[in-house]
Amino acid sequence: MDGYNGKILRVDLSRGVISVDEPDETFYRRYIGGTGFIVYFLLREVAAGADPLGPENKLIFAAGPVTGVPVAGGGRNSVGAKSPLTNGYGEAEVGGYWGAELKHTGYDAIIIEGKSDNPVYLWIEDGKVEIKDARHLWSKTTAECQKLIQEELGDDLIRVAQIGVAGENQVRYACIVNDINHAAGRTGMGAVMGSKKLRAIAVRGHQGVALADAKAVNSLARWLRDDLKTSAAQWSANGTQTLVASANAGGRLPTRNFQQGVFEGADKISHEAYFKNILKGRGSCYACPIHCKPEVATGEPYNVDPLYGGPEYETLAALGSNCGIDNLEAIAKGNELCGAYGLDTITTGGCIAFAMECFERGILTDKDTDGLKLNFGNAEAMVQLVEMIARKEGIGKVLAEGVVQAASAFGKGAENFAIHVKGQGLPFHMPRHRPGLGVGYAVSPTGAEHEANFYDSPVVSDSFKALGILEPLPQQELSAAKIRMLVYGSLWPHLINCLLFCDFVPLSTDRKVDLIRGITGWHTTIWELMKVSERCITMARAFNIQAGKTKADDYLPRRCFTPIPAGPLEGVSIDEEEFKKAVETYYAMVGWDNNGVPTLAKLQELDIEWVAEV
Amino acid sequence: MDGYNGKILRVDLSRGVISVDEPDETFYRRYIGGTGFIVYFLLREVAAGADPLGPENKLIFAAGPVTGVPVAGGGRNSVGAKSPLTNGYGEAEVGGYWGAELKHTGYDAIIIEGKSDNPVYLWIEDGKVEIKDARHLWSKTTAECQKLIQEELGDDLIRVAQIGVAGENQVRYACIVNDINHAAGRTGMGAVMGSKKLRAIAVRGHQGVALADAKAVNSLARWLRDDLKTSAAQWSANGTQTLVASANAGGRLPTRNFQQGVFEGADKISHEAYFKNILKGRGSCYACPIHCKPEVATGEPYNVDPLYGGPEYETLAALGSNCGIDNLEAIAKGNELCGAYGLDTITTGGCIAFAMECFERGILTDKDTDGLKLNFGNAEAMVQLVEMIARKEGIGKVLAEGVVQAASAFGKGAENFAIHVKGQGLPFHMPRHRPGLGVGYAVSPTGAEHEANFYDSPVVSDSFKALGILEPLPQQELSAAKIRMLVYGSLWPHLINCLLFCDFVPLSTDRKVDLIRGITGWHTTIWELMKVSERCITMARAFNIQAGKTKADDYLPRRCFTPIPAGPLEGVSIDEEEFKKAVETYYAMVGWDNNGVPTLAKLQELDIEWVAEV
Repeated sequence: MDGYNGKILRVDLSRGVISVDEPDETFYRRYIGGTGFIVYFLLREVAAGADPLGPENKLIFAAGPVTGVPVAGGGRNSVGAKSPLTNGYGEAEVGGYWGAELKHTGYDAIIIEGKSDNPVYLWIEDGKVEIKDARHLWSKTTAECQKLIQEELGDDLIRVAQIGVAGENQVRYACIVNDINHAAGRTGMGAVMGSKKLRAIAVRGHQGVALADAKAVNSLARWLRDDLKTSAAQWSANGTQTLVASANAGGRLPTRNFQQGVFEGADKISHEAYFKNILKGRGSCYACPIHCKPEVATGEPYNVDPLYGGPEYETLAALGSNCGIDNLEAIAKGNELCGAYGLDTITTGGCIAFAMECFERGILTDKDTDGLKLNFGNAEAMVQLVEMIARKEGIGKVLAEGVVQAASAFGKGAENFAIHVKGQGLPFHMPRHRPGLGVGYAVSPTGAEHEANFYDSPVVSDSFKALGILEPLPQQELSAAKIRMLVYGSLWPHLINCLLFCDFVPLSTDRKVDLIRGITGWHTTIWELMKVSERCITMARAFNIQAGKTKADDYLPRRCFTPIPAGPLEGVSIDEEEFKKAVETYYAMVGWDNNGVPTLAKLQELDIEWVAEV
Repeated sequence: MDGYNGKILRVDLSRGVISVDEPDETFYRRYIGGTGFIVYFLLREVAAGADPLGPENKLIFAAGPVTGVPVAGGGRNSVGAKSPLTNGYGEAEVGGYWGAELKHTGYDAIIIEGKSDNPVYLWIEDGKVEIKDARHLWSKTTAECQKLIQEELGDDLIRVAQIGVAGENQVRYACIVNDINHAAGRTGMGAVMGSKKLRAIAVRGHQGVALADAKAVNSLARWLRDDLKTSAAQWSANGTQTLVASANAGGRLPTRNFQQGVFEGADKISHEAYFKNILKGRGSCYACPIHCKPEVATGEPYNVDPLYGGPEYETLAALGSNCGIDNLEAIAKGNELCGAYGLDTITTGGCIAFAMECFERGILTDKDTDGLKLNFGNAEAMVQLVEMIARKEGIGKVLAEGVVQAASAFGKGAENFAIHVKGQGLPFHMPRHRPGLGVGYAVSPTGAEHEANFYDSPVVSDSFKALGILEPLPQQELSAAKIRMLVYGSLWPHLINCLLFCDFVPLSTDRKVDLIRGITGWHTTIWELMKVSERCITMARAFNIQAGKTKADDYLPRRCFTPIPAGPLEGVSIDEEEFKKAVETYYAMVGWDNNGVPTLAKLQELDIEWVAEV
């Protein structure tokens, strides 16, 4: 291999034109893939005033160097666009098989431009690309759609990334689903795809990923496969489901729209109940032996289909405790419907809980809900609301716009119960006892986001020590040292989203660097890679500034500043003044001015001075 | 080994009290050794108004993790104090055998405090420490002194670090010499030692350095020893002496006080003449097979003694081209005298050249010089001036204060010909065609300093690429991208001075990290290590601010802004406005405000918030 670079596919749906970019190796090394590619192209090509649901927005699917390499963790890709939910930088990651298959077609990324007049889907087989009619796929479930595509193209091994009815209807938190049960969930990427009338992208590739040092990569992959038997045993055995019990025991399980941290029905939705009553098996992603993805089934009344996987922790909290619901089968049904219709379970659960709190407080009445009793704990109503949101029916039509627009429509102080940052609903990790996580939510470019912010563990990991974070800090502390942890710690996950690796694959920092070296042939270091991550954070910030976001958007819902009412964390909340100061400390540490605008020197240091001109 | 930390010896010469600090592992990991230790203790313990030559200054000898480990490059240590030459942060590094021997006594560093009434020397044998009378050593040459100490203590293997007559007389650029021919040359550390009436520190140790992973370190050391046969062949064969010819051919050999870049007598002082006429052999440092240190001898009239080694490139330029002198034997004599009396050859040569220019311009006359004809090219006068400076005789007394004070004493515009930054003379690498190097000189905490600033090579090395500096830039460019090179590139040498490794030992970044891991047992990364270096730069800056230095001190001599008059680089100079802007860009990139003051957030990010209080 002469150098590490490749092909990026461009599809203009307005004009039906297909083209290919071939950026040079320097571009690849500076931006790497995934997040790096997405933020680069969005910042370069999507203008300041672009309507996220207009043809001027671009939807980008991006693989990274690890995607499609036969190594555990190699099954992931990113999807990004200007977000219709936050009106700022939008991005989500997803596992499964589709990303690897895309890479095997010979493309590293797809940039979807413009908008089709009629429903279409994209068919990519190795170098060949076709825009195909999708009118017959419109309004189908995701499982039906995938089956129809595989049948009409005559190949069961075709991988399909698609929207469902929610994306067709441009629900602002519609997701993009691939392989039926893997979702690029957050920031409403499915709505963008729907706005372009692009129902699906089907891929089939026969080209292996070129490796600069195949021997090194394969040897690392083999070592990892064996190591995972012990190092990832918890994910294989438990997945994320055990978090319900531990969060509840700790008094930090988001309950009834984040009002409480203890849910009296937690046992009924815990992993014990889950494993005993609904779990049927576990699925996986490309090249991964961990098999962490649950598959569930139920009988009457919900008849949940295992095709759609099963709820992860986030969904158990989203449609369960946070809605006051302890009916595991109903939660499984809600999860299935989110998969079938292409809805982000986190934001969907947040919207339903918001509606329930408004209903209980009298802001919404039977009249607003067409008679639906939206009390916390009403499992039937939750399932029905998922349907109504996806189809934009009744109260679902308002909720489909997200909590900010819904609160504005409801009035009567409803905005006090809208639990979001930048319009995106909070994931189900309470920030009240973890103010560092709260700052992470606040400054995250995509709004409330948890993946990048788990750095304040009471134990300092080896990989954290390797960055010079030598000592743990109390979770409730919000000091400059905590913000340092946030800054250093959050660089890793952003980097993982450039490389496109999996958080659940416990590979040491050294070995990750070795993997990237083996794939790319670059003699890179963790320093260079962390700087790629800094580059991404800074560019995403620039995108949000261009989109009109200000310091005021780096905020938390008011509820975070009020005490947890009961349980082990009774009385705990974030100090608002400390929080404000911490946000400014974060700005200063990452090289932004006091208003959160990246300094010219920081852009120059990151070798992205061009951003200043954009 | 439980953790990596050790002992730091404190010797209070005023009270004759000896004590030992044992900082914890976190301290060791944050500051590592060498520069890190020195800047930490100076900042903590030397007050803002301290007189560099008063008892309130502290003189610190510091080893690093590599010092004393039997690996090529393991023979170095740092010496630091508030500098009597710059009145700011002072530090110099040195090779040889003394540092390794110190480490083998069981101490990682020595902090010398206070001031003795009578000349003393320190005798450290393993854990045992004695302050001994040195009246009989006063005024001896360094070779005589070392011999006397070894004889009186009855051990030829005792290693001695000492000052000479220049240090005794507190010449502001007196150096500290160990093993007779290795000098911690810059920033006047010998004057500080002299002010404390401490003539020497004799060490003898029998304790090996504890290694966390001896097998890994030894295997790396063996690999390196073999690899150096080819990778360091240039240093073994040529040392630094070949630089005279290449610099002259390129039009960048500092000539006649930096007035010109081409020296008509360059051939006579080139490596060819040197190797043919005066070189007798090459010495080495602890554990190093490279043997880069020249040893020279001459007959009449100079009778140069090979005991004192031989001139390196810097000295060939300092006492040669920069004084317009093409008499290699005279240069060798000047070098010998600097060794015997303990003078920094770089600053000494700069002072002599300055005096010569003043003489030629009529600022100095025969009357001022006691009849000495200080014309450029007068080899005899140069040799005599070295003597007079060391002994503070005649014009030598004024020149012993450095060019800034001498220019002030001379008046008549002499300051226009004082080639220094912060009082310290420029090393012999012209900045006029290399404005990035010029900015490096300007912002260096110790004044003009070259080791940390060779980053603007026309070829980007693998280790530079590994930091994300992917493309070379023209040497004459002074862009933000060039400053980025300076910032990233200068972190390495500062780090090397914490680890105490040798610049001439070509070990890759990975292997250096592996070496530190093997020695310390820390699972560290280049990210953490670079942050240690950032910490040092920032703390040294804080020290200088406390000492009264301002942005105005980050400047270059006026000559740098005037065109080179002839030769291949005719007409080239630094654009002053671009330079000023570049200094501010540097500040911003390293997290300092527009006045060069480190921001609170940068201190917090580096986990040295305590600096804000100092």
